Amino acid sequence: MTTTRRTCLAGLAGGGFLTSLGALAATPSGSEADALALFGKRQSVRRYKADPVPEEHLRLILDAARHAPTSGNQQPWKFLVIRDRAKIDRLRERCLDRHLPRHAEEPEADYKARRETAAKGFGGYFTAPVYVVVLTDSQSTYPTYNHHDGPLAAGYLMLAARALGYGTVYITDSIPEAVTQEVLGIPERYKRVCITPIGVPDGWPEAKAKKKLEELVAWETL
Amino acid sequence: MTTTRRTCLAGLAGGGFLTSLGALAATPSGSEADALALFGKRQSVRRYKADPVPEEHLRLILDAARHAPTSGNQQPWKFLVIRDRAKIDRLRERCLDRHLPRHAEEPEADYKARRETAAKGFGGYFTAPVYVVVLTDSQSTYPTYNHHDGPLAAGYLMLAARALGYGTVYITDSIPEAVTQEVLGIPERYKRVCITPIGVPDGWPEAKAKKKLEELVAWETL
Repeated sequence: MTTTRRTCLAGLAGGGFLTSLGALAATPSGSEADALALFGKRQSVRRYKADPVPEEHLRLILDAARHAPTSGNQQPWKFLVIRDRAKIDRLRERCLDRHLPRHAEEPEADYKARRETAAKGFGGYFTAPVYVVVLTDSQSTYPTYNHHDGPLAAGYLMLAARALGYGTVYITDSIPEAVTQEVLGIPERYKRVCITPIGVPDGWPEAKAKKKLEELVAWETL
Repeated sequence: MTTTRRTCLAGLAGGGFLTSLGALAATPSGSEADALALFGKRQSVRRYKADPVPEEHLRLILDAARHAPTSGNQQPWKFLVIRDRAKIDRLRERCLDRHLPRHAEEPEADYKARRETAAKGFGGYFTAPVYVVVLTDSQSTYPTYNHHDGPLAAGYLMLAARALGYGTVYITDSIPEAVTQEVLGIPERYKRVCITPIGVPDGWPEAKAKKKLEELVAWETL
């Protein structure tokens, strides 16, 4: 076991660094602990700064997603990247249309005020410089497994973005699939998994309360 | 942007290490590159050494899974951990029963030989010291979103295991859900996402051929 784990650690550390302790002891070495810290640091970010995401970073993030587990190596994904501000604004407006329809006989001014209030909170979703629509191809080799492969790739993408210091949020119904399909002209064969912004958070949110490990883990029997 | 990304990097590096270059340049710093390397190193492992996985490592891996994205923070997961060798052997035998039924009028000796041959290849799945059945609770707060949350947690779990030097494989139909439910006595309310071994690989497999980034990414339009 020692040899194998040493090899792995050397690979992970990139520069060949490893501690002899880390390979033998149950206590993770420094580089292992760093890698594990990433998981707890990813949070859902709902407001972003306008700072651009360099294309090189974007490619690194998408490259990580490309290595997600996939059924029979089918890799059924399409990652649709949107940076066009006009499209992003249009997504926001169409979402507001859907989520806040004007009531019958509601005065124009009241409706506008209501919409503006809603846009203030909800609008944070649309402040990032980049969006990735994660899609699976219904014409993939094993389409009945796409419901596994899709979220797996999205999870990889979000973690990789976090590793580079960016926020994301796994959006489903807040930006309905029908809206992304319409505004972005996505062909019907591609089924949406989620859409996520990628950007520098306008402040990292407070950590959400999480269930304790004991609540989630069952040892040998449920 | 610089301040925010510096903060993130300092957090990621754990020990407060950061390069001033990394925070400014598009080229990732050493610690960022290390974190990103993890994604490409995770592979599906189909044969394991018997070396045990220390419980402390197992807890770290499950703790990572606990932080996966989850709809409305519902955390609908149950991670059923199996280390009982008798149960693991029973899973293997019931899988062979299902995948290799005895033909009508097949002589006992022929059937046994056929089963033994099959067990040699397929049996590698059952050589790990630990298995985690990833489940979602159909009585969670938002059960219609469990199909997102389930694979997300499984993906986190597999990456965290890899960070500690262990192999995993996201198993669905090779070990049918009906077999795990029967052998492990899983109550009906829990729906299985997958089952994965966790262990020291009996050799890391060759990397699988992956689609190029250009095939998977669409810029602005599909």
